[in-house]
Amino acid sequence: MTTDFTATRSLFDLPEGVIYLDGNSLGPLPRATAARVARTVTEEWGQMLITGWNKAGWMEMPRAIGDRIGRLIGAEKGTVVMGDTLSIKVYQALASALEMRPGRKVILSDTGNFPSDLYMAQGLCRTLGPEYELRTVAPEAVMEALDETVAVMMVTEVDYRTGRRHDMAALTARAHAVGALAIWDLAHSAGALPVEVAAGGADFAVGCTYKYLNSGPGGPAFIYVAPRHAEVARPALSGWLGHAAPFAFDMEYRPGAGIERMRVGTPPILQLAALEASLDIWDQVEMSEIRAASLALTDRFIAGVEAACPDLELATPRDHANRGSQVSFRHPEGYAIMQALIARGVIGDFRAPDILRFGFTPLFIGPEDVDAAVVILADVMANRLWDRPEYHARARVT
Amino acid sequence: MTTDFTATRSLFDLPEGVIYLDGNSLGPLPRATAARVARTVTEEWGQMLITGWNKAGWMEMPRAIGDRIGRLIGAEKGTVVMGDTLSIKVYQALASALEMRPGRKVILSDTGNFPSDLYMAQGLCRTLGPEYELRTVAPEAVMEALDETVAVMMVTEVDYRTGRRHDMAALTARAHAVGALAIWDLAHSAGALPVEVAAGGADFAVGCTYKYLNSGPGGPAFIYVAPRHAEVARPALSGWLGHAAPFAFDMEYRPGAGIERMRVGTPPILQLAALEASLDIWDQVEMSEIRAASLALTDRFIAGVEAACPDLELATPRDHANRGSQVSFRHPEGYAIMQALIARGVIGDFRAPDILRFGFTPLFIGPEDVDAAVVILADVMANRLWDRPEYHARARVT
Repeated sequence: MTTDFTATRSLFDLPEGVIYLDGNSLGPLPRATAARVARTVTEEWGQMLITGWNKAGWMEMPRAIGDRIGRLIGAEKGTVVMGDTLSIKVYQALASALEMRPGRKVILSDTGNFPSDLYMAQGLCRTLGPEYELRTVAPEAVMEALDETVAVMMVTEVDYRTGRRHDMAALTARAHAVGALAIWDLAHSAGALPVEVAAGGADFAVGCTYKYLNSGPGGPAFIYVAPRHAEVARPALSGWLGHAAPFAFDMEYRPGAGIERMRVGTPPILQLAALEASLDIWDQVEMSEIRAASLALTDRFIAGVEAACPDLELATPRDHANRGSQVSFRHPEGYAIMQALIARGVIGDFRAPDILRFGFTPLFIGPEDVDAAVVILADVMANRLWDRPEYHARARVT
Repeated sequence: MTTDFTATRSLFDLPEGVIYLDGNSLGPLPRATAARVARTVTEEWGQMLITGWNKAGWMEMPRAIGDRIGRLIGAEKGTVVMGDTLSIKVYQALASALEMRPGRKVILSDTGNFPSDLYMAQGLCRTLGPEYELRTVAPEAVMEALDETVAVMMVTEVDYRTGRRHDMAALTARAHAVGALAIWDLAHSAGALPVEVAAGGADFAVGCTYKYLNSGPGGPAFIYVAPRHAEVARPALSGWLGHAAPFAFDMEYRPGAGIERMRVGTPPILQLAALEASLDIWDQVEMSEIRAASLALTDRFIAGVEAACPDLELATPRDHANRGSQVSFRHPEGYAIMQALIARGVIGDFRAPDILRFGFTPLFIGPEDVDAAVVILADVMANRLWDRPEYHARARVT
């Protein structure tokens, strides 16, 4: 049995006639967010002006909100801080980790990782010099590829295309056994399923908040540093708010205490306010219940689609332990099929070359939404409703 | 004669009883901003959901707004893009510039630069290796220190403490004469005075928008790359939105066309919306008129304070050509004096060790505000109103 999330659904402002299966790309608007952002704009910025940094607590938000995110990913208090984008946080984690393994020059990742993580690693290797290398293997080959040449393993827990989930504890243990460090990207995990970065032994973890955590377009990222590394890690991007005494305006950088050093520049207060409103919802739910409901929804969707749409090939693992909170199917006409679905109010997304991707977030999606989406998808497939010119014209973002 | 900016003053939502001389730290709230942000939250994010990236034009905002900023700093169209924080943009400019001068290992800056710029340079040098060096000299010694060892000169046009202004064209010409590149930080210039990055020959320029450009706390930064370098510069922080084809999800980074490559991760749409509302004001004014009014205000403040407060020592150049849009005075009890002023509704700020800093933005500050501030400051000084215990207790941010 899973908890009934009907109550949390009313906390979101969803448009009429839409079945939103894309909360894994951009989470929907919580009802409380507009008022929270308006308060920050009008009462805080407008009335407090510069004094808002103290009076409204702006300066502390990256740490205070970091602790709230930390609760959702199994992090110790004081080990998570908000800021920048996920790509920037990946860079900080990588730079810190490489410096902690000076004799090794290899970053190990997999071909299912989100490309920006790979690009940031490539940029860092380029800056560090030709002896540094990003080595990518198939997702299922990461365990085998962990050897004594690897300085750091950088993987995303849940694959953005297939929804395949890595085993954090097992891969991290293997990384540590060969003397490597482990960086976990939780972009498709945080708010989607129970994560235990501390218990799992992660050295660093990073993630974004605009997917399952519903912070809105461009919401800030987070970074976790294990307490055992917090006073050793060097962020490479050594900005003033990561300084031990930012308002002393020293000429020399001195890293701040622990996680504080991962701060860089002035935090985006409007986006943080939106995130804060969204996190209030998370105070009311248990992640284990979210997970149970999510698995029930994805099971139901897989069963429904496989029964009704024989041409769609499941790309997501059937085994619960290996699945995130999304379901993906492959089809050569995936792009056009997704456009046909969106035109009928079922919003998922397409990922090249052939992936139809559907995210399931029990906070606002119920079994009846799954059933309705299956009916519409079955209609699109059985009657080739996707086979119209307008569904093949590619927009830049899908 | 200067233009009367009474009309623009009504475009800002300033609290009653406050003379706000801190727009150089955090600009005040434009009246139109709250509605603009609310529209983005409720109508765009709330109703369009993921499709907002196309339908609401979110994905194009960093470039479209970049062009509007470009107009204010004398940049060619298509050479400015928004994103991240100023510190991150400093890092990108520095990394690109150093790579373009492979035989040289010295970043030249000055002791009046904002510390975060120096910290980011230190972090980059540390990553690049021990042969790289950040060399800092006194602001007035930069010209002399430009020699053939310098790869890149990185300076802030207007000193954040004293308001002293560098000569962009002269320093850049000297940098180029010795084969170095020039990076200009415009944090205290953009929106404060006419800037001509193209005419001045700048190779890179960076800046923030929450000061004179009134984008709100944590508003995004900008970066300018001269067209002659746009297809050569490598951003080091090579994120997916700077890729030539972000939605192809390639495994290898390929830099995007021109300025596009300086994008990193998902842009902060709520903060960009706030910035957009603020920039509408800038469409209605001429920067040359702003400058004339600003100089009249700072002249008036200097004259008034020097006549009434003999204990305050002017730290800002008297010469117009060498002055930004702020006036600073030194006093050993500067911190307490500023607290006493703030308690009386005159909001400036304090910068260690002894600087009282006052910003003048003609869009919402008039001569009558200057006169009223002088009267209050004179009262505080003449009657030692600052000499109370509560004005000596330091908050973290001032």
